[in-house]
Amino acid sequence: MRVSDIGEFGLIERLMGSSRKGSGDLVVGPGDDAAVWRAGEELVVATTDTMVDGVHFRGEGANWRDIGWKLLAVNVSDIAAMGGAPESALVTLCLPPETEVAAIDELYEGLNECGHKYGVTVAGGDVVRSPVTVLTAAVLGRGEMRDREPALLLRSGARPGDVVAVTGTLGGSAGGLRRLAAGAASDDPLVRRHIRPLPRIMEGRAGVAVGVRCGIDVSDGLLQDLGHVCEASGVGAIVHADTIPVSGELRVAYPDEALEMACTGGEDYELLLTGQRKRMAGLPVTVIGEIVAGSGLQLIDGEGREIQYERKGWDAFRS
Amino acid sequence: MRVSDIGEFGLIERLMGSSRKGSGDLVVGPGDDAAVWRAGEELVVATTDTMVDGVHFRGEGANWRDIGWKLLAVNVSDIAAMGGAPESALVTLCLPPETEVAAIDELYEGLNECGHKYGVTVAGGDVVRSPVTVLTAAVLGRGEMRDREPALLLRSGARPGDVVAVTGTLGGSAGGLRRLAAGAASDDPLVRRHIRPLPRIMEGRAGVAVGVRCGIDVSDGLLQDLGHVCEASGVGAIVHADTIPVSGELRVAYPDEALEMACTGGEDYELLLTGQRKRMAGLPVTVIGEIVAGSGLQLIDGEGREIQYERKGWDAFRS
Repeated sequence: MRVSDIGEFGLIERLMGSSRKGSGDLVVGPGDDAAVWRAGEELVVATTDTMVDGVHFRGEGANWRDIGWKLLAVNVSDIAAMGGAPESALVTLCLPPETEVAAIDELYEGLNECGHKYGVTVAGGDVVRSPVTVLTAAVLGRGEMRDREPALLLRSGARPGDVVAVTGTLGGSAGGLRRLAAGAASDDPLVRRHIRPLPRIMEGRAGVAVGVRCGIDVSDGLLQDLGHVCEASGVGAIVHADTIPVSGELRVAYPDEALEMACTGGEDYELLLTGQRKRMAGLPVTVIGEIVAGSGLQLIDGEGREIQYERKGWDAFRS
Repeated sequence: MRVSDIGEFGLIERLMGSSRKGSGDLVVGPGDDAAVWRAGEELVVATTDTMVDGVHFRGEGANWRDIGWKLLAVNVSDIAAMGGAPESALVTLCLPPETEVAAIDELYEGLNECGHKYGVTVAGGDVVRSPVTVLTAAVLGRGEMRDREPALLLRSGARPGDVVAVTGTLGGSAGGLRRLAAGAASDDPLVRRHIRPLPRIMEGRAGVAVGVRCGIDVSDGLLQDLGHVCEASGVGAIVHADTIPVSGELRVAYPDEALEMACTGGEDYELLLTGQRKRMAGLPVTVIGEIVAGSGLQLIDGEGREIQYERKGWDAFRS
C-alpha cells in the first residue's frame, strides 16, 4: 500500500492513531490547525507548513519575496485558526548548492515583510543541502486563557444549532492561480490573493473574545475544511450556496465557475467559524450555513436543491 | 554568488544579520542550538532539524525505524545543548506519492520509541507531496529558570579560564558511517552509534544545575563545534589531543585515523561544555582543554606540537 492509495487525510489519521498519547501539558495534539501546550499560566501554540519546489511553487523564475511571504503567512494562518497570536518562527531551508544567494536574500525579505506585519520574529532554523528546494517554517505563538481555561478555536468545537460563518471572500486564490498560469502579472488582484495571502489573526482573536470556540482556516477548500470540522465535532452541516461570499473579481473573471472555485479552490486563508448566531453578530464575517446533528455536508442552492462537486478540495497525494 | 560559494555558515550568518530583531520575549535568537522564549515565568526552547533522502540518509532499503529515531534524536540533542528538557514535536513529512505506507509506519515507530525514551510527544506536523523524501522535526521543550533568570547552555557563554569538557566518547558515529559503507550490520557497535544517537539531556540539565552556562552538541565535529563556541564567545581554545575520549571501538577499527575522526567526524551528539573546573567536577564529563583569551583553536599533542587537519567538520554545502 502506498501513500497515494490512502491520501493525505488517510495518512494523517494513521499517524494520529500511532502517536496520540498526550503528556499532561499538551492541550491540543495532532489533527487541528496547530498544537497547543500549557506553559505555566500561558498557552503556547505551534504549527508547521512546508512548500516544495514544483509542488507548491515554481523556483525557476520565481519571485522569492512572494514565496517568503507565503511561507510565513500560511503558518500564521494556522495560528489564526486557533484564535492565537503568532510570535516567532523557525525556518528550514533545504537548498541545492547552486542556489543563488540573492534568491535567499529575497526570500528573507518577503519572510521579514510578512513577519513585520504580523509581529513574527525569525528566531532560528536549519539549512541543509537537498536536490530539490524545500522550505519549511514552524511558527510559535500564544493562545488565549479565559478564567484559567484555554480559549481556542478548535475543529472539534462545532455544535448543532451553531451558524457557519467565514471572513472575507472566497475563491480569489484559486482564480489567481489560474490567471497566473495564463500569464497574468503579480499586480492582478486575483493573483495577489494567491501569492500574498493575508491571514486573519485579528478576526480569530475577536472570535475567541466573543466566545466563539470553533474555527479552521480555509486552506484546502471551503467544503473540505468544513468537512474536517464536521468530522472532528461529530456533526453535519448545511451550506447555502447563494450566501457564500464569492470573490467579486472571481465572478467577473470566471462567471460560470466562480461558485465552484469558491467552494473547492482552497488557499484563501480566510477563517471559517462556527458558533451561536448572537456571538457572530459583532464579527466581520458572513453567515453561510448551519451545523446540524448527524453527519455529512450539504451544499444547497436557492431552490433547496443539493449541489455536488466532484472535487471537494486539495489532497496532497491525490490532487 | 551561489550558496555553495559562501557555505552553510556563511549563509547562516547572512540570514542572522537579516532577521535578528528580537521581540521582548525572545531570550535566544538565531545562531545557537535552539531558540528560547519567555512564556510568563517559564522558558520555551525550540529547535528544528531536517533529513533529506540521499544527503542525510538513503531511503532505498533503509531501516525506517532507525531514521525515525534519528530524526527525533538530533532535535532532542539541540534541546540538550541548551540545558533544556524536550516535550513535544511537530513532524513534517515530504513524501513521493509512491512511498510505502509501511515505511511511514516504521518511521513513526522509531520516532515514538525515541520519544518514549526522552519524554517527547508528537503533537502535530504537516504532510506534503515531494519528488524527494524530506523529513523535518521541530522539538519544543522547557528551559531552566534560576532566581527568575534563564539558566541555559549558550554558545556565547565561554570565558577565558574555563575548562573544555565533553560527555561520552567521540568519533564512534563517523566510524559507524564508514563501517556501514563497508557493509557492516546495524548491530555493530559503531554503526549503532551512528544510527541510534543518544542525546545527553540529563547531562545538559546537570550542567545547568551546577552552574555551567556554555554548551553545544557535537554534531558537526568536535573542532568545528568548539570553533562555533569560540566565535560566539569571542575567545580562543586549546585542546589536548591525548585527553580526548576517543571511542574504544573506533581505536580498534581504525587505529591510525581514530583521533582525526574523533576531532572532525561529527554526529556523535555528545555535549561539549565549558565552565569553571570546580563546577565540572561533579559532572560525567572528560576535560579536554581550556578556553583562553583571544581567538582561534589549537589542537596540541603530548609533546606540545600543534596538530592540523585539513577538514574541520561538516559543511552542508561544501562537504
